[in-house]
Amino acid sequence: MTDKALVVLSGGQDSTTCLYWAIKRFGQDNVSSVSFDYGQRHKVELTCAREVAARVGVANVCLPIDTFAALGGDALTDASIDVSDEKDSQTGLPITFVPGRNLIFLTYAAAYAYRRNINHLVTGVAQTDYSGYPDCRESTIEALQRSIELGMDIEMQIHTPLMHRSKKETVELAVELGALDAMALTHTCYNGRRPPCGVCPACELRAKGFEEAGVRDPLLDIG
Amino acid sequence: MTDKALVVLSGGQDSTTCLYWAIKRFGQDNVSSVSFDYGQRHKVELTCAREVAARVGVANVCLPIDTFAALGGDALTDASIDVSDEKDSQTGLPITFVPGRNLIFLTYAAAYAYRRNINHLVTGVAQTDYSGYPDCRESTIEALQRSIELGMDIEMQIHTPLMHRSKKETVELAVELGALDAMALTHTCYNGRRPPCGVCPACELRAKGFEEAGVRDPLLDIG
Repeated sequence: MTDKALVVLSGGQDSTTCLYWAIKRFGQDNVSSVSFDYGQRHKVELTCAREVAARVGVANVCLPIDTFAALGGDALTDASIDVSDEKDSQTGLPITFVPGRNLIFLTYAAAYAYRRNINHLVTGVAQTDYSGYPDCRESTIEALQRSIELGMDIEMQIHTPLMHRSKKETVELAVELGALDAMALTHTCYNGRRPPCGVCPACELRAKGFEEAGVRDPLLDIG
Repeated sequence: MTDKALVVLSGGQDSTTCLYWAIKRFGQDNVSSVSFDYGQRHKVELTCAREVAARVGVANVCLPIDTFAALGGDALTDASIDVSDEKDSQTGLPITFVPGRNLIFLTYAAAYAYRRNINHLVTGVAQTDYSGYPDCRESTIEALQRSIELGMDIEMQIHTPLMHRSKKETVELAVELGALDAMALTHTCYNGRRPPCGVCPACELRAKGFEEAGVRDPLLDIG
């Protein structure tokens, strides 16, 4: 059986780098990508994912997730929880943001892969720089791989090429993989701006990585 | 902190028994239930779940899942897969049925529990009688609990009171917990019939359990 890989593609810098990594590792013909329309604030992410996938000639499937929205902030939820428009001050994400979001993404990706004889998943999660997200750490991904393998009775390897890389090292990897130009198609800004706002935490983190790598971010030069 | 439990309630015999088990263990005030509207063939299951929960005075939240339907059988999927109306001959479920379905259900249940200070999940999965579903076995549930605990950075115990019980023993437990009458409100039949068709695999399995326990199934006496 040929090894095939499915990349979880958010349309951001990290998952785009992972897409290039997967193509180098498995070959373009054996790579496809999946994105999730889960009620994210900026749908432009999905457009970016589609454009990135098209650029490298890889299929991109978008799966809907309506459950996250229902998990918080409606009449069904505990009235003692204020979900209104409040945002998490650190991440800028709504406080209705689902805990363990990557568990859901990767389990759906595995379910999608299951019937298509795909036995490798690739995700851009990283421990470095992301201490706020316990579902990004290596121990979580290892446990999840075991859950998926047992729960679906299959072999399914989850690859995390960026797990221990800093943002600087991720930029360096992108350069090495020839993914730098594609970075102009990606989206990072929490404020949904293209070109990026440059001041939100996501933009700051991205800028820091490019600066430390000594590379100009092509996203800064669009339109 | 008071121990609170969330029961994954399908509206069937097993999860209803688990709801009674949870009430005995945690107290009625500390138990709530969650059901999933995931495109199942028979929506009557959700009505049954609501009625069972109402009978015991426990909240029942229904969360939508539109992703399962999108995983198979639309223009996005591999054209080589025939998903039409074909059913799995053993289970009677559509072949678009999602692999590892319980991984998704329990992860969503955990995400729902997370913000409500609920630290126990209860599910009716069982190894006995269900060898076709690898996501029901104990090793899967143990791995999943670890994924959830690591991925959400919380303690979350998954209880499986029926894991090693036969259908006969599950009926006996229902009797012991005073849940027998509530069985008239549950749904099992793959053909969606109430009273049950009596000939589908699910009806046969249920009937066998009641027969071996020497108990009359109250569902047979409705309507």
